[in-house]
Amino acid sequence: MNERVARRPYDLDGLTDVALRVFAERGFDGATMDDVAAAAGITKAAIYHHVSGKEALLTRGLSRALDALFGTLEESGARDGSAIERLHYLVRRVAEVALDVLPELTVLVRVRGNSASEREAIARRRAFDRAVAVLVREAQHDGAISRDVDPSLAVRLIFGMCNSLVEWYRPGGRLAPPAVVEAVVRLAFDGLTAGRRNDTMQSLTNRLVGKEGS
Amino acid sequence: MNERVARRPYDLDGLTDVALRVFAERGFDGATMDDVAAAAGITKAAIYHHVSGKEALLTRGLSRALDALFGTLEESGARDGSAIERLHYLVRRVAEVALDVLPELTVLVRVRGNSASEREAIARRRAFDRAVAVLVREAQHDGAISRDVDPSLAVRLIFGMCNSLVEWYRPGGRLAPPAVVEAVVRLAFDGLTAGRRNDTMQSLTNRLVGKEGS
Repeated sequence: MNERVARRPYDLDGLTDVALRVFAERGFDGATMDDVAAAAGITKAAIYHHVSGKEALLTRGLSRALDALFGTLEESGARDGSAIERLHYLVRRVAEVALDVLPELTVLVRVRGNSASEREAIARRRAFDRAVAVLVREAQHDGAISRDVDPSLAVRLIFGMCNSLVEWYRPGGRLAPPAVVEAVVRLAFDGLTAGRRNDTMQSLTNRLVGKEGS
Repeated sequence: MNERVARRPYDLDGLTDVALRVFAERGFDGATMDDVAAAAGITKAAIYHHVSGKEALLTRGLSRALDALFGTLEESGARDGSAIERLHYLVRRVAEVALDVLPELTVLVRVRGNSASEREAIARRRAFDRAVAVLVREAQHDGAISRDVDPSLAVRLIFGMCNSLVEWYRPGGRLAPPAVVEAVVRLAFDGLTAGRRNDTMQSLTNRLVGKEGS
């Protein structure tokens, strides 16, 4: 890429970035192309040079979020190992992706199916949930997860935790991304009281190996 | 209440119900008073007889959701017992309340602070989160929850699960409310792999009491 191109203020990707921040702040319905132009510091005409309109910018944003999510399914951690290992890997990656593409995820979480591209995005998101629910079912079959958990329900609640990041997570704030990812994984697999149960297990184990009296 | 009043097609509460459904479906910014009038089957003039406008209907909806949440803090289960017991009670009640006031919670989850009443709602919601985070901290002090969990983060993620109900839960569908509430409580406290760790503990316990060889 020559320097002239690299220094161009906005290409379609840069413009999509700006538009997504505007949509995330004002809501897609509340945001106008004037808002996007103002946030980008260019004219509406300059935007229309790149893209047909607000809907096209939304579609690009939704695709980014969904491509990032589906991309995780292709990674070796999601393909190799036992079902519970792959599930563990995917929950971690979904939390990481959520923090990576927060503005994209914000619009994805909020679409209500008002247009063809919104409905397609909702369908793809559900397909992703189903792919992960299949892993929960496999992990149940392996005995790693109790069978009295409803796989789809569990997946929706766990991704609900991840999606909630769009409501309250502020990049650069008190909580660093790795701490948030760790908390999501820990809650999803071990719950709040995990440490305590592990302490109980440790105490039982110690008694087994004779470190403590009974 | 005499029969004439009881049979009036809409009072302010009934109108708020209709408006919340419209806001939840179309988004508050996307919804118009014409939409509310159409959904109620009455004229806009008849609506303005009851209420000053869209903002006032939103404010009433937000108050309902927040009053229901804060109401749980006054219940005896949230006031008596150890911190972990009170926390357990509250997570269950928040999940129940979420399903009880789903349209109200939908608008609450989606407000972005565009008006004074939206900002007040966000402040009250944060105050509720803080009240519950205090309980997590007390439970850590009691040793019921590991100290390496960040209380505010844990509360936000757990309520993120509850709030996600507004995105995907459909009343009258496959999942009955009690099953959803149970899944939320289970994931929050024990995580996905809880049943399995309990099996491990049971096996360790059995070895301690001599039911199995080493």
